[in-house]
Amino acid sequence: MPRAELIDDSRRSPKWKARREAIIDVSAPVFARHGYHATGIAELCEANELGKGALYHYIGSKEQLLADIHDRVMDEVMEGANRVANAEVSSSEALTMLGDELIGIIASYPDHVWVFLHEYQALTGERAERFRLRRQEFEQRVEGILTTGIRSGEFRDVDPKLTSRAWLGMHNYTYLWLKDHGPLTAHEVASAFDDIFIRGIATT
Amino acid sequence: MPRAELIDDSRRSPKWKARREAIIDVSAPVFARHGYHATGIAELCEANELGKGALYHYIGSKEQLLADIHDRVMDEVMEGANRVANAEVSSSEALTMLGDELIGIIASYPDHVWVFLHEYQALTGERAERFRLRRQEFEQRVEGILTTGIRSGEFRDVDPKLTSRAWLGMHNYTYLWLKDHGPLTAHEVASAFDDIFIRGIATT
Repeated sequence: MPRAELIDDSRRSPKWKARREAIIDVSAPVFARHGYHATGIAELCEANELGKGALYHYIGSKEQLLADIHDRVMDEVMEGANRVANAEVSSSEALTMLGDELIGIIASYPDHVWVFLHEYQALTGERAERFRLRRQEFEQRVEGILTTGIRSGEFRDVDPKLTSRAWLGMHNYTYLWLKDHGPLTAHEVASAFDDIFIRGIATT
Repeated sequence: MPRAELIDDSRRSPKWKARREAIIDVSAPVFARHGYHATGIAELCEANELGKGALYHYIGSKEQLLADIHDRVMDEVMEGANRVANAEVSSSEALTMLGDELIGIIASYPDHVWVFLHEYQALTGERAERFRLRRQEFEQRVEGILTTGIRSGEFRDVDPKLTSRAWLGMHNYTYLWLKDHGPLTAHEVASAFDDIFIRGIATT
């Protein structure tokens, strides 16, 4: 990616940054509805009530906007993972907390997460690599909790990598139906899921 | 969907049908690579080494081709589910068998499954409804195994619908990484996953 495409927002005003955040949030449902490639700049301008020049002033490029939506999800996910890392709890409780954080984010940002999970392949070059590393970082947090639990004897001797993928699939996939989950809250869904998962890997 | 768009292939020759099947299989990776909306008829013609007229002669329309890819996956999935239904096994064994069938299909048809899971929203009208019903039919098979196991006392008193979604997420999500799962076979992945899941819902 050419350097010039990157937005250096360190010198921007709080107002500019707030407007940019708002554009990210307004654009996520537009991408979620029609798909990234099928969404034109004209549609984004209309949704954000901005002219083309003004929109580019905030987003840099359509792909940068996509990357920003990804970062918004990953920022929340890693904040949740940090809260779990800082809590002094057992491995079972840590995994349950992390599941609760993750499904909470999926419920709070359904459109962002849809774009995040469906359109990550549209990111190219440095942006694709950055996103891959951020995802990997989260996956390693899940593996880390599993490894700690195995070492302490709380969990059976499962394969941490494979087991983290089972766990991630179970949780991430809720993005397809969580909006229509009826009377259950995101917290109740997460509790039921992690109850199954923890029993599935516990030594006792 | 206008009736005229439907392909009545009951009077077609075996040769015509075989050619059509081949086109479905060649086109799945093209959609998987670029996405359904971004793939033009010209690209499909090139991949299939056919002129536009000849291609339409077999596929009817681009959306019908997408529906055919979905059906190809669902046919396999339901065949697997029928094998499980006909086996005289416990509920735990039935769920383990079904997981093995499902991950086996995901491993055998990675591109079809990618299109199936990523592009189902591009189906419209009757085709979307037909696909929704076929998916639902499979989900009900999973719920059915869970309900039987709960009644027989093999499984705890979990919510069958919610638990089926946990199970489906854990299995379906493998489509994102199963190609790169290293030394493990699809069968080994399924065994590890269903071992966790069965322990998670078992009464003992």
